Amino acid sequence: MKTLQPVEVVKQVNEGNILTPKGFKADGAHAGLRYEKKDVGVIYTETPASSAAVYTKNIVQAAPIAVTKDSISQEGKLHGIIVNSACANACTGEQGLKDAYEMRKLAAEKFGVSEHLFAVASTGVIGELLDMEKIANGIQALNPTTERVSAESFETAILTTDLVSKHCGYEAIIDGKKVSMGGAAKGSGMIHPNMATMLGFITTDAVIESTDLHAALREVTNDTFNQITVDGDCSTNDMVLVLANGEAGNEPLSSTHPEWPVFIEMLKQTAETLAKKIAKDGEGATKLIEVNVHGMKTKPEAQMMGKTIVGSNLVKTAAYGADANWGRIIAAMGRSGVTFNPREATIAFGDIVVLKDGEPVAFSEEDAKVYLEQDSFTINVYLKEGTESGTAWGCDLTYEYVKINGSYRS
Amino acid sequence: MKTLQPVEVVKQVNEGNILTPKGFKADGAHAGLRYEKKDVGVIYTETPASSAAVYTKNIVQAAPIAVTKDSISQEGKLHGIIVNSACANACTGEQGLKDAYEMRKLAAEKFGVSEHLFAVASTGVIGELLDMEKIANGIQALNPTTERVSAESFETAILTTDLVSKHCGYEAIIDGKKVSMGGAAKGSGMIHPNMATMLGFITTDAVIESTDLHAALREVTNDTFNQITVDGDCSTNDMVLVLANGEAGNEPLSSTHPEWPVFIEMLKQTAETLAKKIAKDGEGATKLIEVNVHGMKTKPEAQMMGKTIVGSNLVKTAAYGADANWGRIIAAMGRSGVTFNPREATIAFGDIVVLKDGEPVAFSEEDAKVYLEQDSFTINVYLKEGTESGTAWGCDLTYEYVKINGSYRS
Repeated sequence: MKTLQPVEVVKQVNEGNILTPKGFKADGAHAGLRYEKKDVGVIYTETPASSAAVYTKNIVQAAPIAVTKDSISQEGKLHGIIVNSACANACTGEQGLKDAYEMRKLAAEKFGVSEHLFAVASTGVIGELLDMEKIANGIQALNPTTERVSAESFETAILTTDLVSKHCGYEAIIDGKKVSMGGAAKGSGMIHPNMATMLGFITTDAVIESTDLHAALREVTNDTFNQITVDGDCSTNDMVLVLANGEAGNEPLSSTHPEWPVFIEMLKQTAETLAKKIAKDGEGATKLIEVNVHGMKTKPEAQMMGKTIVGSNLVKTAAYGADANWGRIIAAMGRSGVTFNPREATIAFGDIVVLKDGEPVAFSEEDAKVYLEQDSFTINVYLKEGTESGTAWGCDLTYEYVKINGSYRS
Repeated sequence: MKTLQPVEVVKQVNEGNILTPKGFKADGAHAGLRYEKKDVGVIYTETPASSAAVYTKNIVQAAPIAVTKDSISQEGKLHGIIVNSACANACTGEQGLKDAYEMRKLAAEKFGVSEHLFAVASTGVIGELLDMEKIANGIQALNPTTERVSAESFETAILTTDLVSKHCGYEAIIDGKKVSMGGAAKGSGMIHPNMATMLGFITTDAVIESTDLHAALREVTNDTFNQITVDGDCSTNDMVLVLANGEAGNEPLSSTHPEWPVFIEMLKQTAETLAKKIAKDGEGATKLIEVNVHGMKTKPEAQMMGKTIVGSNLVKTAAYGADANWGRIIAAMGRSGVTFNPREATIAFGDIVVLKDGEPVAFSEEDAKVYLEQDSFTINVYLKEGTESGTAWGCDLTYEYVKINGSYRS
């Protein structure tokens, strides 16, 4: 695949969000972990939702990850998730774990449900304890509704150094019923394969068991969230959570359901849209870079090469400068760990071919500059090792990234 | 080992350089590949030298690498090496390979020696052909001597975006004879494990066969040149070359020679000094970061973790901001691919412990800031997985890096 193409039966919902599917409510509030910005958010469904999540592969995992794993492990069901920004509650020892369980309890009490039916997520600075008094007050202040403004409140509350909130919505007909899906995400720094300071929340009213939902999520994550990189760093707190409350009334979805591919496609669209929004809004980024690698023996190889290219600081700074410096691309390909014949390599910025079968091609630097100055561009790599392709997304590396990260804590 | 400690018998030579050993000459000249700066350099020894080299592991290797491999493969001997900066002669196809052979021939003719007794190295922009007329004129202009000023000319001629020239010299007594060693290097961008746009040239008057020299070089490279990173990128042109002309008159060195460890130590000192100078002068860098990882099961694991930490953009930007953001260090450790128990992790900036057995420790942010504002500082990581240690070196990530690389070609 070049990029995921919308299957016709899956339709994007204009201004869709986590409240696009039936039965979900959300809100965000200001708990005071930050001076002004909302910093606590909730997604809630009265009908318990089948749940599935994927987590950071970092060996160091924050306390809320342990708590969410515990919740989902019990029944595979959730009423909702409570999230805070500003403090990651990571590397906070026993106290941090107690605090994460307490946060879950406070949310469950607020909504009158069992503790194990709530998930917890945190994002922000590592190594500082949560201010639990503020968290408690923030949770009390939450007042979830089904209105768009409530989704916006949630989307804002989960941001850290993100500049824009990230959301999308899709719908499809399954078993003659309208099934909807919505998503919200935050990203920015520490974004790299295998999840990063990335939180993704996907809601759907589809009927699906937790185990099938988990299978679908895993399948989709490898091609979407795990194919973005902002800075190569991978956080302690990453999580993508899907809640399926079943209110659409379709027949239970599983791999034997004839319309399973439609559901997978909808989940893919949602995940890819969120992932690309995260990449584009990487810390200090001014543009989205898409890398498509064609003609590899296997898809994972194509994906790995794509990630190496889009993760190269030299490619990223050249992108910032709109400099058609393809030498850095082939150098990144060569160190990607993937075997290929450089004499058969072709590289193009969009349609502008700069290297053809391993030999430099004369091209208009001016045209290339115009192309690379767009707020989104594509690098295409063609090899002759096989027929598999893979895509990765990232962003440019700018002064602003250095500024943001030179003194993030202050 | 924490860092390599000087063995007493190996002494640093004040202002030592590639001309510290007997019998070597050098020079640099202005061929006109750049406007003003010297851009062609030579090292020459009248007595043919046993030679050994290690090269980039990038699949894409520049033409001069092929030529140097060809030269050394023939007799394991060299009279010298001809180097140019400004143009890497990489990804230049058949013409590039012809040009690299022609460059070797021009140098050999100039000095009246066989072609295969000259090595070739290039560094600079990828994908552009060498201007052979300028190269020919530059080679003609070379006039190597044994004077310090000639070593300085060579050191200058090989630089690209480096700000300072890099050299060192050592001596030791072996078999009652004074054996000397000197080195010159260039680095700056695209510096990462497995060689990068890094050229290292080491001269010695030791008597040693080419195969033994190669074994020594390989042993030392893994702990030195391969443990530095500037930006995670790895070039198409990296090479470290050692020339041993035997003029010291010691008994031939090999692993059975009683003073073999002295020679290894001298080579290690030379390589480590050059490697650290490269890291410190990374593109846009303002400081050298040393990371020591202690208590790992194996040395390669300790080295890999060290490299991951010192290669993290988030650690690098925090270093720039003198921000004691240890959360980024443990996050990097967690994604390093090395297994460890985070609850036993201790992290210190120099002696300032910030995480002890997985729990945050109160520390003076002010003291930490003062420590991190130095032009060189150390991150110490202590684990309890085993008894092995490893060291890596890198630099901070600054506005200047982005500036340099946003428009390197223009």
